[in-house]
Amino acid sequence: MASDSNAPLPKQTRAVDPRLAPLETPALILDEARMRHNIKRLGDRIESLGVTLRPHLKTAKSVEIARLMLENGNGPATVSTLAEAEAFAEAGVNDIIYAVGIAPQKLDRVAAIRSRGCDLSVILDSAEQAHAVARASTRHQAPIPALIEIDSDGHRGGVTATDTALVEIGHILHDGGAALRGVLTHAGESYNVSGAEGHAAFAEQEREAAVQAAESLRAAGLPCPLVSVGSSPTAHAVRSLDGVTEVRAGVCVFFDLVQAGIGTCDVEDIALSVLTTVIGHQPAKGWVITDAGWMATSRDRGTADQTVDQGYGLVCDEAGNVVPDLIVIEASQEHGIVGRRPGSTRSMPDFPVGTRLRILPNHACATASQFTHYSVIPPDAGTPLKTWSRITGW
Amino acid sequence: MASDSNAPLPKQTRAVDPRLAPLETPALILDEARMRHNIKRLGDRIESLGVTLRPHLKTAKSVEIARLMLENGNGPATVSTLAEAEAFAEAGVNDIIYAVGIAPQKLDRVAAIRSRGCDLSVILDSAEQAHAVARASTRHQAPIPALIEIDSDGHRGGVTATDTALVEIGHILHDGGAALRGVLTHAGESYNVSGAEGHAAFAEQEREAAVQAAESLRAAGLPCPLVSVGSSPTAHAVRSLDGVTEVRAGVCVFFDLVQAGIGTCDVEDIALSVLTTVIGHQPAKGWVITDAGWMATSRDRGTADQTVDQGYGLVCDEAGNVVPDLIVIEASQEHGIVGRRPGSTRSMPDFPVGTRLRILPNHACATASQFTHYSVIPPDAGTPLKTWSRITGW
Repeated sequence: MASDSNAPLPKQTRAVDPRLAPLETPALILDEARMRHNIKRLGDRIESLGVTLRPHLKTAKSVEIARLMLENGNGPATVSTLAEAEAFAEAGVNDIIYAVGIAPQKLDRVAAIRSRGCDLSVILDSAEQAHAVARASTRHQAPIPALIEIDSDGHRGGVTATDTALVEIGHILHDGGAALRGVLTHAGESYNVSGAEGHAAFAEQEREAAVQAAESLRAAGLPCPLVSVGSSPTAHAVRSLDGVTEVRAGVCVFFDLVQAGIGTCDVEDIALSVLTTVIGHQPAKGWVITDAGWMATSRDRGTADQTVDQGYGLVCDEAGNVVPDLIVIEASQEHGIVGRRPGSTRSMPDFPVGTRLRILPNHACATASQFTHYSVIPPDAGTPLKTWSRITGW
Repeated sequence: MASDSNAPLPKQTRAVDPRLAPLETPALILDEARMRHNIKRLGDRIESLGVTLRPHLKTAKSVEIARLMLENGNGPATVSTLAEAEAFAEAGVNDIIYAVGIAPQKLDRVAAIRSRGCDLSVILDSAEQAHAVARASTRHQAPIPALIEIDSDGHRGGVTATDTALVEIGHILHDGGAALRGVLTHAGESYNVSGAEGHAAFAEQEREAAVQAAESLRAAGLPCPLVSVGSSPTAHAVRSLDGVTEVRAGVCVFFDLVQAGIGTCDVEDIALSVLTTVIGHQPAKGWVITDAGWMATSRDRGTADQTVDQGYGLVCDEAGNVVPDLIVIEASQEHGIVGRRPGSTRSMPDFPVGTRLRILPNHACATASQFTHYSVIPPDAGTPLKTWSRITGW
């Protein structure tokens, strides 16, 4: 859980990894052991529930990480951009859902990816989009599969499970030459509640909405092979998946302070950090200035509305041990200002110029996207640091 | 100025540029005519004040744009990363200040750039850093030039002009084998006040602090050839530069909603926008959903504390005409939610799926950094769209 002023000082058990020495700062550090632990935790859980796991690759955006997340290394996957779909398809991933409502202009690119042997499907929530997918299927003389997005919590897109548009969209796809692949929902609002009870309630909302939508389609004589639900909080709290065929989750591969703040993980599970160097001080203000500004941490302030506001990130020493009550209180483009959490009575540690620190991210997806690659610390101390590229752009 | 509900509807004078048609969304659009206007405005102003302009390239991060911003195409420049310094030096820029407090670990890389013929200087504000620069100068058998950072407004780093550390640092550099190149200040707090009067007051604070620091160094028998000041708001409002040798400014090459909000520019001056496509609707909520989430706009919410909160950006039609009262009210990774500004009574325009819009950025530095390249609209309608790359990483 997030640290606060009343917590006892944690044991400083980890030592600095000598493999970090050659890295220039800021750098994006990935603790492979923690990541593998997170991947296994979700995999075991979803396996025990008897459904398929379709990891979301939008957080990692890395072929090497996808291999570790996906069943057999190339199994069902979710992506957030066609650039990801192209890169993962090229790497052999053969079953992908592009889980952002399809723009008609992108359908030729979808068809091109499909023609190279990847079963890429799209999502949509309107008759206009369904007509566009049907037309593109006809144009390419090959049905493009689409899932209908279901709104289970008012978060963003989707039709509700009781909306008459649902069956109408299904018919436009099925009768128009596209393929109706199923229904999909995502309880994005689960990020705004804390604790397993609340997340389990959102998980049940996801399940109910998706299953009800699937039943409506089937009652209308339409196919609905996939019933897809998921978010990191609900995937870790869900109790029943009756009628669901698959679960999607992404940020839990690394976890972050937002997820720790709502109880999906502990701070110690966070696998991602930004390595930074101290470049100055303003002692009268209690400020330590680093070279990790928002260009490195991102502008994400996802913990701002949580019980414990982590600023632009929680500060660790170079070994990765959390420094109690120390956060990035302000950030400009290439400067981070590290200071004590408001209300803290702890004294400011002495970090001379040149000291290296690590910053845990508010939001792993946003922080990772500020970098072109990961510097990966393998679990075996004898293995050298690895560099894994990230997929960029759209 | 920022639009509000009481303003009359602006004339929709601009037509869609057919050169945008082949672009996929989201895309980063640069209006070259507006950018050239902004560059000329600052250049004329600083020329009339009789000092050198040293543009900050951290916003543009592009060799092509640097050519247009710099005197003779390769004149004095400011950068925020050594990756920029390397790329611009390689392109022939031969006088660069790396304007982020130097980490000792970065000095070998600085020396390597200098050895390739670029006069790169660093900044610092502590005896520890000055000793490190002196040691690196000895190690490389070539003096590394450094400017002392002066704190003129309590914004971030720097020693105050009256701090006795100033002359001490000067001596460590000058007597230790480095080169004392001068003093530098940046009134970052000027971003938090609105209007030319307030910005002129910050400009005078910058001037006074820098000139006083220079005089202290000279009185101690130390050299101080450069007296460097600047920020976009102060550079456009400054009245006297007596004793100053150069002015730095960066974001004004593109401008943005934060700068418009404090009166440094008009919304019509903003040269940068994100092209996006409508992918859905939630009519009951007045939402239009687009494919420009925070991965495209960035998480920057710099207008949140201004008089007019622009959300994640102000919405224009594809031609670039502002749509009154329409902003990006919420953003997730690849979804933008467009809606009416709170309090607006205007009706929601009809934007069918597939409609393309353009989003003006809160903060040009942050939004541009989400992309690997610009799609540049040349002023001459007969010239095709150009693609200019951005420098990434550190």
